Amino acid sequence: MILVSNDDGVISSGIRLLVELMSTLGEVVVIAPDSPQSGMGHAITIGDTLRLKKVDIFGDIVAYQCSGTPADCVKLGKNYVLKGRTPDLVVSGVNHGSNTSISVLYSGTMSAAIEGAIEGGPSIAFSLCDYSTKAPMDHIEKYILDIAGQVLKTGLPKGVALNVNFPPKRNDSIRGIKVCRQARAKWQEEFDKRIDPTGREYFWMAGNFENHDKGEDNDEWAIANNYVSIVPTQYDMTAHHAISILNDEWEI
Amino acid sequence: MILVSNDDGVISSGIRLLVELMSTLGEVVVIAPDSPQSGMGHAITIGDTLRLKKVDIFGDIVAYQCSGTPADCVKLGKNYVLKGRTPDLVVSGVNHGSNTSISVLYSGTMSAAIEGAIEGGPSIAFSLCDYSTKAPMDHIEKYILDIAGQVLKTGLPKGVALNVNFPPKRNDSIRGIKVCRQARAKWQEEFDKRIDPTGREYFWMAGNFENHDKGEDNDEWAIANNYVSIVPTQYDMTAHHAISILNDEWEI
Repeated sequence: MILVSNDDGVISSGIRLLVELMSTLGEVVVIAPDSPQSGMGHAITIGDTLRLKKVDIFGDIVAYQCSGTPADCVKLGKNYVLKGRTPDLVVSGVNHGSNTSISVLYSGTMSAAIEGAIEGGPSIAFSLCDYSTKAPMDHIEKYILDIAGQVLKTGLPKGVALNVNFPPKRNDSIRGIKVCRQARAKWQEEFDKRIDPTGREYFWMAGNFENHDKGEDNDEWAIANNYVSIVPTQYDMTAHHAISILNDEWEI
Repeated sequence: MILVSNDDGVISSGIRLLVELMSTLGEVVVIAPDSPQSGMGHAITIGDTLRLKKVDIFGDIVAYQCSGTPADCVKLGKNYVLKGRTPDLVVSGVNHGSNTSISVLYSGTMSAAIEGAIEGGPSIAFSLCDYSTKAPMDHIEKYILDIAGQVLKTGLPKGVALNVNFPPKRNDSIRGIKVCRQARAKWQEEFDKRIDPTGREYFWMAGNFENHDKGEDNDEWAIANNYVSIVPTQYDMTAHHAISILNDEWEI
């Protein structure tokens, strides 16, 4: 059974494509947010209630919309809808916009896949590096099927989910797949201060993506060079190399 | 300058203690959520506005409450309040509850520290493994000062923030500090289905923490054995060991 979720909401065109493709590989169940959840990171709903509603928008495929976050969707999917059964595969997306580099932390799309990995099954997040909700996706269909098919066949290392990003459709065809590391890059925020009709200040956060990585083994390089990037991503965030540094250097 | 944030909100007793202690080490600026943000993970506010309001609750110390997430607080703090200046130290907490093991992903407290590290300064999240908002904290004051003082003196490895958890106050004194890895453990969720007054279903998520880790080098072991746990935590989530596995095994 393949569990499909996303962060753009159950009616986005990206999840529709993913549902169509996954249904050629196996039985599909959809549980996705009832509203956009971009930037939700790995948020979960604590101290508030959750709603789950069956929706009839994918033909014969069982689908639910959930009031919670992408991580909530996977938790509710496995532990309530699937009655504790671990899906053969959790897929999330196709996100309308890039989730390369540092965006892996902020990404709701990726959090659904990470949650799938925590729950013990192979999991993949798919994102298209084009923020238009009408961006063409025909150039990525083959790759989604190939990657999901490969993972269904060989599984993934324990504790690892895949962060897959696709280049936008360009004149040239995609050149292939690169297994990458997360690029060293960050968002440089700017805050646009405005005054509301009652005279009170408010802010819009806007950001410029700054890539400081000169390497050719990272996801930003892959996308810029028209490759599909696959970053194997783990939820063990321990900086293992730093343990000995602290033990050696600290005086307390 | 020391930037103080948290996820329990600006009026929590944990942040009050942290502000008092940090003000003995340097100049302090507080920017914290105006309401509890537990479980927000690394969420940021996209597609909505942010409010920032000066509050006069810490005497002479400049303090703001923010309508956003802990990560928003640090972004707005550095890029607007501090006009782009990187703090000498970002501290987050003291959280009322554990942020050991897998909770690092869900923790708003930790996301403020991670965001501080992304912004290029040394950053520490402090959590007390006691969910009571009135839990005693006098046993951890010395350790907060020692750890923050050490980090101010020697800095931290690039790309690393500290996830510090303290044991609850017990009859025996804390036995010392252990630099640890994140324990292999997970939350096993249960969903409590109820019916609202209009007859519609809703759910409460509840979870049991399941520790599968037999090691003595992890944060769960440290807390259970009355040590302070320090997990150096990185925002590069690449599973570097898995890159060669995928390159070797995959046929696509």
